[in-house]
Amino acid sequence: MAEPLPLPALVDQHCHGVLRDDLSDERFESLLTESDAPAAPGTGFFDTQLGFAVRRWCPPLLGLYPHCSPGRYLARRRELGAGEVNRRLLRAAGIGVFLVDTGLPGELTTPWELATAAGGTGHEIVRLERLAEDVAGRLSDPGSFGTAVRRAVDEAARTAVGFKSIAAYRCGLDLDPTPPTEAEVRAAAVRWSDSQNSQNSRDGQDSRDTVRRLTDPVLVRHLLWCAARTGLPLQLHTGFGDPDLTLHRSDPLLLTDFVRAVRPTGCTLVLLHCYPYHRGAAYLAHAFPHVYADVGLSLGYTGVRAQAVLAEFLELAPFGKLLFSTDAHGLAELYLVGVRLFRRALGALLSRWVAQGDWSRRDAERVAVLIAADNARRVYGLGPGSAAIG
Amino acid sequence: MAEPLPLPALVDQHCHGVLRDDLSDERFESLLTESDAPAAPGTGFFDTQLGFAVRRWCPPLLGLYPHCSPGRYLARRRELGAGEVNRRLLRAAGIGVFLVDTGLPGELTTPWELATAAGGTGHEIVRLERLAEDVAGRLSDPGSFGTAVRRAVDEAARTAVGFKSIAAYRCGLDLDPTPPTEAEVRAAAVRWSDSQNSQNSRDGQDSRDTVRRLTDPVLVRHLLWCAARTGLPLQLHTGFGDPDLTLHRSDPLLLTDFVRAVRPTGCTLVLLHCYPYHRGAAYLAHAFPHVYADVGLSLGYTGVRAQAVLAEFLELAPFGKLLFSTDAHGLAELYLVGVRLFRRALGALLSRWVAQGDWSRRDAERVAVLIAADNARRVYGLGPGSAAIG
Amino acid sequence: MAEPLPLPALVDQHCHGVLRDDLSDERFESLLTESDAPAAPGTGFFDTQLGFAVRRWCPPLLGLYPHCSPGRYLARRRELGAGEVNRRLLRAAGIGVFLVDTGLPGELTTPWELATAAGGTGHEIVRLERLAEDVAGRLSDPGSFGTAVRRAVDEAARTAVGFKSIAAYRCGLDLDPTPPTEAEVRAAAVRWSDSQNSQNSRDGQDSRDTVRRLTDPVLVRHLLWCAARTGLPLQLHTGFGDPDLTLHRSDPLLLTDFVRAVRPTGCTLVLLHCYPYHRGAAYLAHAFPHVYADVGLSLGYTGVRAQAVLAEFLELAPFGKLLFSTDAHGLAELYLVGVRLFRRALGALLSRWVAQGDWSRRDAERVAVLIAADNARRVYGLGPGSAAIG
Repeated sequence: MAEPLPLPALVDQHCHGVLRDDLSDERFESLLTESDAPAAPGTGFFDTQLGFAVRRWCPPLLGLYPHCSPGRYLARRRELGAGEVNRRLLRAAGIGVFLVDTGLPGELTTPWELATAAGGTGHEIVRLERLAEDVAGRLSDPGSFGTAVRRAVDEAARTAVGFKSIAAYRCGLDLDPTPPTEAEVRAAAVRWSDSQNSQNSRDGQDSRDTVRRLTDPVLVRHLLWCAARTGLPLQLHTGFGDPDLTLHRSDPLLLTDFVRAVRPTGCTLVLLHCYPYHRGAAYLAHAFPHVYADVGLSLGYTGVRAQAVLAEFLELAPFGKLLFSTDAHGLAELYLVGVRLFRRALGALLSRWVAQGDWSRRDAERVAVLIAADNARRVYGLGPGSAAIG
Repeated sequence: MAEPLPLPALVDQHCHGVLRDDLSDERFESLLTESDAPAAPGTGFFDTQLGFAVRRWCPPLLGLYPHCSPGRYLARRRELGAGEVNRRLLRAAGIGVFLVDTGLPGELTTPWELATAAGGTGHEIVRLERLAEDVAGRLSDPGSFGTAVRRAVDEAARTAVGFKSIAAYRCGLDLDPTPPTEAEVRAAAVRWSDSQNSQNSRDGQDSRDTVRRLTDPVLVRHLLWCAARTGLPLQLHTGFGDPDLTLHRSDPLLLTDFVRAVRPTGCTLVLLHCYPYHRGAAYLAHAFPHVYADVGLSLGYTGVRAQAVLAEFLELAPFGKLLFSTDAHGLAELYLVGVRLFRRALGALLSRWVAQGDWSRRDAERVAVLIAADNARRVYGLGPGSAAIG
Repeated sequence: MAEPLPLPALVDQHCHGVLRDDLSDERFESLLTESDAPAAPGTGFFDTQLGFAVRRWCPPLLGLYPHCSPGRYLARRRELGAGEVNRRLLRAAGIGVFLVDTGLPGELTTPWELATAAGGTGHEIVRLERLAEDVAGRLSDPGSFGTAVRRAVDEAARTAVGFKSIAAYRCGLDLDPTPPTEAEVRAAAVRWSDSQNSQNSRDGQDSRDTVRRLTDPVLVRHLLWCAARTGLPLQLHTGFGDPDLTLHRSDPLLLTDFVRAVRPTGCTLVLLHCYPYHRGAAYLAHAFPHVYADVGLSLGYTGVRAQAVLAEFLELAPFGKLLFSTDAHGLAELYLVGVRLFRRALGALLSRWVAQGDWSRRDAERVAVLIAADNARRVYGLGPGSAAIG
């Protein structure tokens, strides 16, 4: 199979906005890592698989040679301006549909802006913890939080195509799988409000001015169950992320009892990222009809190793259960790199399997389209795709 | 090493019977997955590595092209009839010895039938939990369960070549490693019987008519220790399986304290399946003289990736400690696929290592025979093998 | 990139002395495994990836063909004598700097002897648990243990280049991350001393004659914090080792809270071995500026699979955060094999990535030097290296 696998316009089932402004070298580099601190003395974040992949794929779109130095690349980026760079990289990526988690802080492009820059369409994924914190910030009576948040989730379900939870960051995935009672939710909401007020009075601030970080497991469970009951797909952060998270408490397998408990609601669960627990995530997608797995972040961050990681997803995961994404955030570079690495990894793997006679070419083409776009279209009810652009 | 590695007739150290009847399309497909439910809307169980491997290897034996459609394959299978298909696939597999776990429900072929169809010999592996449930069903005094089950295990040891436990399914592998006292066993057996009786009186049934699922960890431990004391090898389910099981509670490393505790009995432990914890299983086989690891299910279910998974087993596991199996169940296809994937994976790996100069050809041939047959012959005391058929 | 990657003289950042005496066949074989017992009946420790790697790389330096039989190799080894064999193998390895953990029992060569035999330089890594046991053996008042051990650690820091802890062996890595209070240390030290005395009076021995194995988690934590506060790098055993250790309690991710707690001290943590949790270790090195990962033991023991394992380290670990070592112990063969496997694995991986266009040759050469030597030079403050010898 010398000729490349034709792929349709991709559906990026999990991503974020990009920054509109020109970036300092330090700011750019900080967006190449999940770390929360400057690089260790004598090291730099460009010296990673992701950094090398950016230098491999992006310079040609800015009129530079692949692998040019970080300094040269960043200078040229500023010369062209962030707007022009974002347009070039997003257009080149070839993504047709963006499902955008809008819950990140910062001045990021909206789904509509992203889609316009890229020539595609955009939809919103609502981040539950952000939604709940917004609701709490507007309430005077914490006792009504449970009902208010449920209404807000139901309201969001009218326009969003799915929800996302970062429970892994807030309390770990080893949580009680059952829905909390109304009384438990009320008590937890009052506890949260009280701790917030006492914190604020120590700081001399009004409670509604401050960000209220929701970490109580009872409230997180309430959110998950509110979302599950809407019938929309629920994305769950699993696996690696920034150092706020304790990795072994983000193993997707810790969700097994929640997966079982939520099954009767008919809700679909999409396990995000998963690495290095992606074989366990693929197992859950194999064993449970309502579980899917996302290959996003895991491919971007592992760069030249994306093929090896994708191959491990493809051991147990049924081919109708894997979903492409970039998890791009802040830098348009992450869109381009996410797409290039995915297309090359998938193409190389499937081509080899066809060449060896293990798969038919027809099956390989069909599976590639499923993972690139059609599984996401089916799961999120997006309707049929546009013509192939690969 | 252009010429393939010669392999002896294989010893399949862990398998089950096949179904004798013609199967509906739905029934066939349900035997291609560990899931307990129909495939998710828009997906199917043929769209998996195992499904693709079946379509790669089996159609030629039914007079069809490789990779023909599932519909065509299933129609031809019915045309020939299950008996003829089973014979063709089993003969082609080239297995000389079958160690059959006879503890699965359903109308499956016996070890003798299997061996006859395949032209080999069969032996029985007794599943402890099934044995214990049968014993309990015949007892009027639950207080005598401990002794009765020990006698049944000792009796079974006279004809079986080994035991198997599915403790992973029943209570997880993070169990107390020590043998329970007689009093603990008695109390647990009475508790189990009482809960069974109260369940039955709610259902209006007689207690001896119903299946009694043994899940009490005290009783499971009693079973493990009864088996260990017979001196026969004890197979333990570890790693993935159907959704009844919680995968991270089936990590073979959770058995470490049991491995230590049981060491003085002289019992041999064979860790089954292991995936995705096969590197941990290989470590246990490396660190403890009485621990072995099985590559079965993990190769069949990962299809074209079998080579990659087998290579990971071969990192820490001593070459005298790995055992081939198919874990075939229900479908004769799983025998053929298990064998083909194993032979190709092992042949490709060892050939490459010889070609690179890392292994000698002589060593590679010797190791291949160990894993394919001789390790199992030694562990189960099966006597020397027949002539090479590879 | 047909020509091999030039590598500088290597810095072996974690190793041990070798035995000076001629060895029986049994003794030699026992040093090829982490197991604590003779090989299982019908198997042998030469039948492992490490055993095959020894037979691949070492015989030519003793004037034999690669892959000669173990018997022939061992006979030739005795013929030449251990001194001559050690010199030949150590010289051939091409290690310029040895950081030697001197805390292992047995008649092993000192850092100075090692370095002299190899034509390099040696430095000491002090093993905390051994240091503490020595201190305790000399104390009459256990209440002063906390202060005495802190002084001993500070004293050792004047000449050593780093510390090492085997907390994984002694209490597992799932330990309380905070420093114990002085009162807690005092109480734990008295407890330890009392249990030791009662043990000794049962055995009829004087307490200062016997080895006092430190396993109390409070005392282990005290050691870790004493070392962290010196500002020297602290090596931590993680991942596989001998059967004394429970592998899943040695997952480096269990250290996450300790990593966070120790961060303000400015201490550098080096995670040793890591396998099979090396992807998690690489994540910690990615997420936290003060965490590094070592590829040692994991490459030696996996032999021909070293390339695959190293590639997994190279997914998330920043290239400035990975460190070469051999973890050689007892046998000079382990130095040679560790070096050969590392050079081939790294060379093959990076060459392929350059050939595919994913990395530039310049970057590949730079990263190779970082992992082989310069990261260790920077972390341990060793000063610039000597000329390239690759």
